[in-house]
Amino acid sequence: MSNERPAVPSPDGGLFRVRMDLSYDGAPFYGWACQDDLPTIQGSLEAALEVLIRRPVRLTVAGRTDSGVHARGQVVHFDLTGPEWNGLSRGASLTPEEALIRRMRGILNKDLTMPLRKAKAPKRVIHAMEGAITVHSASLAPAGFDARFSALWRRYSYRIADREASRDPLTRGVTLWHDFALDVHRMNSAADAVLGVKDFLSFCKPRTGATTVRELQEFSFLRRPDGVIEAHLRADAFCHNMVRSLVGGAILVGAGERTPEWLGTRLQARIRDSDSLLASPHPLILEEVRYPPDGEMERRAVNTRAKRTVP
Amino acid sequence: MSNERPAVPSPDGGLFRVRMDLSYDGAPFYGWACQDDLPTIQGSLEAALEVLIRRPVRLTVAGRTDSGVHARGQVVHFDLTGPEWNGLSRGASLTPEEALIRRMRGILNKDLTMPLRKAKAPKRVIHAMEGAITVHSASLAPAGFDARFSALWRRYSYRIADREASRDPLTRGVTLWHDFALDVHRMNSAADAVLGVKDFLSFCKPRTGATTVRELQEFSFLRRPDGVIEAHLRADAFCHNMVRSLVGGAILVGAGERTPEWLGTRLQARIRDSDSLLASPHPLILEEVRYPPDGEMERRAVNTRAKRTVP
Repeated sequence: MSNERPAVPSPDGGLFRVRMDLSYDGAPFYGWACQDDLPTIQGSLEAALEVLIRRPVRLTVAGRTDSGVHARGQVVHFDLTGPEWNGLSRGASLTPEEALIRRMRGILNKDLTMPLRKAKAPKRVIHAMEGAITVHSASLAPAGFDARFSALWRRYSYRIADREASRDPLTRGVTLWHDFALDVHRMNSAADAVLGVKDFLSFCKPRTGATTVRELQEFSFLRRPDGVIEAHLRADAFCHNMVRSLVGGAILVGAGERTPEWLGTRLQARIRDSDSLLASPHPLILEEVRYPPDGEMERRAVNTRAKRTVP
Repeated sequence: MSNERPAVPSPDGGLFRVRMDLSYDGAPFYGWACQDDLPTIQGSLEAALEVLIRRPVRLTVAGRTDSGVHARGQVVHFDLTGPEWNGLSRGASLTPEEALIRRMRGILNKDLTMPLRKAKAPKRVIHAMEGAITVHSASLAPAGFDARFSALWRRYSYRIADREASRDPLTRGVTLWHDFALDVHRMNSAADAVLGVKDFLSFCKPRTGATTVRELQEFSFLRRPDGVIEAHLRADAFCHNMVRSLVGGAILVGAGERTPEWLGTRLQARIRDSDSLLASPHPLILEEVRYPPDGEMERRAVNTRAKRTVP
């Protein structure tokens, strides 16, 4: 559980902890976290849950994503009472899990599931928020599960089209269009120098009182057959802005504006200045969050909390 | 050349005919064709060309796409005078072809090529029209080339996610989300019955005085490894609404609401009534337009025009 929220017990305390896995298109939202009067992913999900459960439900998320960032494998948890959980399937021949998925989808995706209409004059197609969030699965979480603190690692991807021929208007919502060619080999040299357990202060927007030490387990660039460069980053956890800042630095190296050693030197310098550049958020996707086997959730969460408070 | 436009001679008449290949995301536009005060693809391209050439330039297109329909392989032509063509590269060490591509991209994509910014508070990401149209190539066309009448065939694709697990928010702009599972085998049976040279009146919005006879060369559905159904349609040319009407009919068959024979029976009936249903435009993509070898452009255009006027 995060610092901001009261601890809620697992099923043994009479509450049922629910794990929900989801995807979203970040474009129409102002990021994950609730903001007054602005559409956010957390806000939309909590509003949908309130329709179902008939009281406010707070979500805890594995990876808070910035404004414009997408997710294919986001994980959240929330807690329900026994009657709330069992009441989900009331009046339907479904399990509570199935009913929760079905009803969340109904609320979130209502306008996208009308494939046919009478043949009249074409009307404007609105790609609004409908379908921007999809619930893949919902289930009772194993004992001790915490979407944020039980996670072993998070994995992100980032797409860059640096050749004009690989610019596809249909994927421009998830791809950076870079003006000229990047050297993937140089970018990988730079990335190698920041792997491991390091203090990523130079690549973070630090939160007061929180450590910026993280274990960066993977940071690599590859050129796909269609010419698009794809970055993969994996860490036990990422600081705020860390992925976009690392990718931004690697792009400067790939463009020849910095040497391959620059990224590692900058890491060691532990500074934040005008050289701190962020790559655009729209090509960034949270791909996956990995958890330990069921029996180890509680221990992992305890370890994570301890590690986070000791810089 | 289409009926609506005056004939413009090829290079021998002192004019240079230019072929331009492009992709676009149809979502932000009200279709291909110019409409007063509404954003259209033709309107955007002609406005960009007017900036470059400093006079109005009319485009002839291979496949007019409906509102919301996309293209990966659209083809257009337009005619320039010798001084206009050669003037494109003035002041740059580029050929006129390179200069045309570069400058069109500069006008159409200006806001997407700024990958980095100073690390400040995240701002709203706007996925506006920038980058919605991409010019892949531009070149002097072979003698007798006409983007519309020289074409041998057009190929379209259509994506349907009929399983909840294959609904991806990041591709919802190009995918139909169907509420329940479709039977691909039934859809292919239905599609087979309408292949060949047929009168497609039952699947068209006919234009006065124009034939609705077309040769449908391919119409098939396949289920991809990720669970998404992909339709492929190829014809010498398509009537207005024909692709969406055929796909809409096949979806009714795949959903079990009509028998596989229904599509063929309907074709033979040559009627338009309340059973005429259109599939949504947003999953439809014009993938490719194929032309004959260079020496046969003129002959193909003459043949096409003749065929079109004899029903």
